[in-house]
Amino acid sequence: MRYLIYFSYDGTNFNGYQHQPGKRTVEGSFEKALFSINNNKKTKIYASGRTDSKVHALRQSAHFDLSITISCEKLKRALNSFLPDDIHVFEVKEIKNTFNARFDVSKKTYKYLINTGEYNPIERNYVYQYCRKLDIKKMRAAIKSFVGKHDFSSFVSNESKKENYERIIFDAEIIQDKDIITIRFIGNGFMKYQVRYMVGTLIKIGSGKYDVDIIDKILKNNSYKRFVSIVKPEGLYLEKVEY
Amino acid sequence: MRYLIYFSYDGTNFNGYQHQPGKRTVEGSFEKALFSINNNKKTKIYASGRTDSKVHALRQSAHFDLSITISCEKLKRALNSFLPDDIHVFEVKEIKNTFNARFDVSKKTYKYLINTGEYNPIERNYVYQYCRKLDIKKMRAAIKSFVGKHDFSSFVSNESKKENYERIIFDAEIIQDKDIITIRFIGNGFMKYQVRYMVGTLIKIGSGKYDVDIIDKILKNNSYKRFVSIVKPEGLYLEKVEY
Repeated sequence: MRYLIYFSYDGTNFNGYQHQPGKRTVEGSFEKALFSINNNKKTKIYASGRTDSKVHALRQSAHFDLSITISCEKLKRALNSFLPDDIHVFEVKEIKNTFNARFDVSKKTYKYLINTGEYNPIERNYVYQYCRKLDIKKMRAAIKSFVGKHDFSSFVSNESKKENYERIIFDAEIIQDKDIITIRFIGNGFMKYQVRYMVGTLIKIGSGKYDVDIIDKILKNNSYKRFVSIVKPEGLYLEKVEY
Repeated sequence: MRYLIYFSYDGTNFNGYQHQPGKRTVEGSFEKALFSINNNKKTKIYASGRTDSKVHALRQSAHFDLSITISCEKLKRALNSFLPDDIHVFEVKEIKNTFNARFDVSKKTYKYLINTGEYNPIERNYVYQYCRKLDIKKMRAAIKSFVGKHDFSSFVSNESKKENYERIIFDAEIIQDKDIITIRFIGNGFMKYQVRYMVGTLIKIGSGKYDVDIIDKILKNNSYKRFVSIVKPEGLYLEKVEY
């Protein structure tokens, strides 16, 4: 039987989502839990995608197959009892065995949180402590350039070699609530570091270092890649995955 | 010159406020920073009071004397550069040398956060993950009993031997925002574990285990002390200290 699960995690103490031998990862924690649940049988889990070290997830999704029979409610309880306290499964569904948690994604939402006020030690792992003013108007004007279908090869880690760097951003927004700025992207998929590069470049615009039209230029011409800037992973959240 | 400082910290990775040899504490971190700033001279710091391991502070206060001359602005910068990233000093003031950060306190505010909804791994160190419904009406009726001048000897750690267990609670409130309940106490001072015992007992009332009048009974009669219940330190914040 194939199961689709939705779960959240605090990325702070993980070396990212993806399994790495000898390191604490989200995938590794699931594999350990599933091994125990699925009669000591090695059980692979397929997530909607990876997240980097220190990146959080509010509603990540994954599928896996079990050879045992277990109700969704019991499986949810079993997973949460085997998983560490920085991961939590909040939904378990039976799903047809042609479903794939990665390839069937229609929309993904990421958000990035920035504190423009006084440094807050309590939120240091959850909100980027930028602690300076940003020009939201400029950032709002600039973020529009990302919306639509674009070649994002300048906004991708150099390690990522892909055949296709084209992605669609359906919507992007910037919300200000006192000192906290939330930048949200909804797209059909995001490549490694893509959101962190997009946010980093928007911050350079908000700080007055780059002009509003720099994003247009970078998207149209790869030689502008040197203007792309990255931000820390701590403020980033995978907020939602939709099928 | 005597200085009064206001600072915040994330209690998660500290063994409480108070200095303990060989352990990571807030006071110990300040003593290390002040030693470097004050010309390698051992410098004592006097806080408004201690907080337990894992308890956070949004606006803790302390005083200390320096033998060097330094502006408040420079001292703030120096402290933050020497302190670890889970402590932040946000205000430094020169103050008369008769001022005492502990004995001159007029009001202290503590708040405690409880999540009554689905377990949230990202907030596990900052909000108590109770994850069940609570009867707020009953808790609001019960919390009134704490307001006023009372003998709180039943709501204190057994380790605390005091001459005087009388304290005044000026105000107490319970705020509900979706699944998050905030319980706030404003008083002239709080003893070790006092807030955690008060909140723990309120939770027993909200869960239906005890009647609303149990707090009155405990405050009036020490033999009811067995009904006093404690909660985890993670949800507790020293919110404000006033002089």
